[in-house]
Parts: sequence; C-alpha cells; structure tokens
Amino acid sequence: METSARIVIQQCLAATLRLNPESEVSEAEYAKIKQGMVVFVCFLKGANKELVEKMVKQVLAIKLCEGKDGKLTSITDLPGDLLIIPQACLGGKLKGKSVQYHSIINKTDGSDLYRTFVELCTDSFQQNSAMQEAGCVVKSGVYGNRQVLNMETNGPFTHIVDF
Amino acid sequence: METSARIVIQQCLAATLRLNPESEVSEAEYAKIKQGMVVFVCFLKGANKELVEKMVKQVLAIKLCEGKDGKLTSITDLPGDLLIIPQACLGGKLKGKSVQYHSIINKTDGSDLYRTFVELCTDSFQQNSAMQEAGCVVKSGVYGNRQVLNMETNGPFTHIVDF
Repeated sequence: METSARIVIQQCLAATLRLNPESEVSEAEYAKIKQGMVVFVCFLKGANKELVEKMVKQVLAIKLCEGKDGKLTSITDLPGDLLIIPQACLGGKLKGKSVQYHSIINKTDGSDLYRTFVELCTDSFQQNSAMQEAGCVVKSGVYGNRQVLNMETNGPFTHIVDF
Repeated sequence: METSARIVIQQCLAATLRLNPESEVSEAEYAKIKQGMVVFVCFLKGANKELVEKMVKQVLAIKLCEGKDGKLTSITDLPGDLLIIPQACLGGKLKGKSVQYHSIINKTDGSDLYRTFVELCTDSFQQNSAMQEAGCVVKSGVYGNRQVLNMETNGPFTHIVDF
C-alpha cells in the first residue's frame, strides 16, 4: 500500500514552538508544552479525512511515553501534552544530493487535513476528564510557516509511523 | 530493496547531548555542537560497512543546511557541526498500540557500524581544511545509552532517509 501520511514522534520534557516572529507592532508568539509528545505530521498525495481519524487514534493510543514507573504508556494515559507540528519535508525523497518533494499533498488540502488532525486531538483531550483535570493541552504550529522549535528531552526516543 | 539503515536529519542552531548522568563521583558529561545537523542513526539487519560508507557520503553531501544567503547547502559547505545520535527506535514498527523492534541489528554489530559511521565523519571533517579553519566538530552519543538531548532550532526541517 502506498504511504499517504507520515508522522515522527519524539518525547519531550518541555517544548516551545515559535508561532510568529517578533515584529515592529507585536511581540513573538509561542506555543509551549510541558512533558508529552512532539508529533511532526506530513500528508502525502492520497491522504484524506478518514486517514486523519485513523492517525489521531493511533497517536493518542501508541505506547511511547515513559510513565512514572518507567513503563511505556500512551499520551492519553500518561497523561501529557501534545505539540503537533506540520512538517511537509518528512515527505521528501533523496535524489542525488538534493531532496525532492513530489509526493507531498497540495497546500490547501494539506492545511485542511492538518487542521482536522489538530481538532480531533483537541476534542479527544477535552472529552477525557483525567486529561482535563491534569491540565493537559494540545498545541499546534501554523501550516506553511517555519517551525522554530526548542525542545528539552529525556531522550527524544524518535519513532516514525507511515500510514 | 529492503531497508538496512535509516537516518533522521534535523537542523539545529545548537544542540547538547548528555553523555553520562551526574554521579556521586563525577559530574555529568555533555557533547555540545553549534549550528549544524543532528543526525539520528539506526542500523537494521543486513547493514554492513559498505553501506555505512555510502551513508556517510550522503550525510556530508546532502543539501539540507541553510546557508547565510538562505540557500540550502551541505554540512560540508556550510560549514557546520555534526551531532550523531544512535537511535535504534527508528527501526520500530507499529503493531497495534505498541512498537516492535524485530528488524533492528544486534547490539554488537550495531555498535561497530555506529563507531565506523562516527569515525568516517570525523575523518572527513579533519581532512577538510575549510572545516578545520572554521573549527567544525563531530560529536556523538553513546550506543545503547539513553540519549538526553536539548536542541534549539530555527526550524528542525526534519528529513528521513532510508538506505
């Protein structure tokens, strides 16, 4: 089966994403999370809303977070924060010394799917009383913007999942 | 062709990897780099030294670093630092809610190939007079240890390359 989407998951103790740079009229804006997962998302040609639903279920259930007892658990059961970062370059393919991006979905559809991904994660967090009590949040980057990220980890524990 | 190795490349303005935690008898040790690339490396079954040579050539030549003029260039031409991090979990495959690691090479061979990878990069840096004049360094993590990483980026610009 052709890959239609790709995510990279890294663990963090804290992460800060700059949403907008400082300008003459405003200060820089940041999205910050505490302990949890940073999820980089890339949609390729063929991705659709059904796939996004499947991806979100997997992301919320995958046991890659280190719990207090050292055992791996899901972000939902940790519970922890989620930072979702659009990262179209994940769909790049090495060609000689350069990378080509022919497989990536067009910007309009990619932006729609990304927004859906973030909304579904946010809904799921809001419907989970344990996560709400713990004050867990979903933060996200801006599709198409440069993603200026600072991350503190206890081991990034990087995983790649293709859909 | 079966994948025998996988790397994830992220750009950084600075990165710090903890090599050893603080203990009763010694302070924590860190590997630090300035602007350059963080390369996560995973060897799968079937990887060998010839493949490592090919991987190193690609890593040093791939144009994924942002030069002063905004154009993409290689780490060699930037020139910049390199932080090489062993990351066996990149070879994991999602199975239900858990990740399985059956494809990963055994620890002895993986450790050997990782050392070769770091040595070849270091040799290449040392043979390049422009990199030497700029004080560029290759730093690396310890195979099998937990990789405690802090990273500051101007956009991680994450790429995955399979070999």
